[in-house]
Amino acid sequence: MRIGILGTGNVGRALGGAWSAAGHEVVLGSRKPDETAARGGNVPVVSTQAAVASADVVVNATPGTASLDLLTSLGAPALAGKVLLDVAVGFTDDGGLSHPGESLGEELQRAFPDTRVVKSLCTLDRLVMIAPESLEGPSTVFLSGDDPTAKDTVRRLLHDLGWSPDSVLDLGGIATARGQEHFSLLFIPVAQAIGSYRFGLQVVKLSDDVTESYEQAQAAAESAS
Amino acid sequence: MRIGILGTGNVGRALGGAWSAAGHEVVLGSRKPDETAARGGNVPVVSTQAAVASADVVVNATPGTASLDLLTSLGAPALAGKVLLDVAVGFTDDGGLSHPGESLGEELQRAFPDTRVVKSLCTLDRLVMIAPESLEGPSTVFLSGDDPTAKDTVRRLLHDLGWSPDSVLDLGGIATARGQEHFSLLFIPVAQAIGSYRFGLQVVKLSDDVTESYEQAQAAAESAS
Repeated sequence: MRIGILGTGNVGRALGGAWSAAGHEVVLGSRKPDETAARGGNVPVVSTQAAVASADVVVNATPGTASLDLLTSLGAPALAGKVLLDVAVGFTDDGGLSHPGESLGEELQRAFPDTRVVKSLCTLDRLVMIAPESLEGPSTVFLSGDDPTAKDTVRRLLHDLGWSPDSVLDLGGIATARGQEHFSLLFIPVAQAIGSYRFGLQVVKLSDDVTESYEQAQAAAESAS
Repeated sequence: MRIGILGTGNVGRALGGAWSAAGHEVVLGSRKPDETAARGGNVPVVSTQAAVASADVVVNATPGTASLDLLTSLGAPALAGKVLLDVAVGFTDDGGLSHPGESLGEELQRAFPDTRVVKSLCTLDRLVMIAPESLEGPSTVFLSGDDPTAKDTVRRLLHDLGWSPDSVLDLGGIATARGQEHFSLLFIPVAQAIGSYRFGLQVVKLSDDVTESYEQAQAAAESAS
């Protein structure tokens, strides 16, 4: 797949390296490619326009507060029909979310209706994104987006990062990006509590054979009702 | 322990039944105890004033949008010195959070500075709250609060619900309640995606022996930087 990653920060470089190693044709898009060329390592750094023009999948790994302006400057026609994998979250200076009432993912989908926006990976540190097997157990990565085929494309890209099909949870439409982005407000205190940004989040379901203890709990809850 | 639970809804009743079964002296506090007496089952329903007066620990299990008004009506002196375990989250009519920029937990701590507010359990369905062993694996419950001894009290109450010490993660001060409450925006789409509100959330740490694959991922990320 031809992947154009917007942003040459830690996240963009980690994803670029991993997808390049998996055999994809990857470029990093920068507003100042001459200045940032060295940051790409094995991955070419080109202009943001060039990164988008050649891409089947555009990845938004720019700061969440700058993403809309950058994409708008490229123009809706340049993005039309493409899959836009949005992994960004915007923060205010005081650590709040820059989209408190909704999400960046929704904002981008609204601004670019002919682009197929998929939100994923934004609940994870960059190294966990590309090495889920480094965790001590299975963990969950989320998908949000209105277009099923675009989500299938992102599933394949997640698989190439090491995420098993079982670990991918499709939350539904792009409105559910809100939950992924707001998780940032829990991510940071968890990271501080455990002393590492490198952790995953596993959705743990009810035991298959709902246990006696659960029946007892249910009975206790009902008896108190 | 003497526990006064404000609210006779599903959550208050489930917690009341479970702590009563564990040997605590529990009452449910209602604004209309005559009308709601039958809802308590084995747990007495009393007025909100009486529930608070007799309690070592007050549990806020009222709707998050009504909590501040209710507690204010009881008066700060009635709550002074007590532990207030806040398990509520406030939602707007359109499914957003009623405290989008911060959290109910912080609001309550600010309104009642002589009360020791601890936020916990609000990331979980009521039956998972009282039966964590019903899940197919270990999961995490969070603590937020400014007073360490109040958090120790809540730890004991969590233990009595079945939460092992390993499963309790202290996030820090009450400001971290924000993360717990905002998780609601992810909780709901996850529940819809898996078809059940009964799930837990496990924080999955990096493997103890950081694996070769992780070293490779780190190397790949660095080589792209």
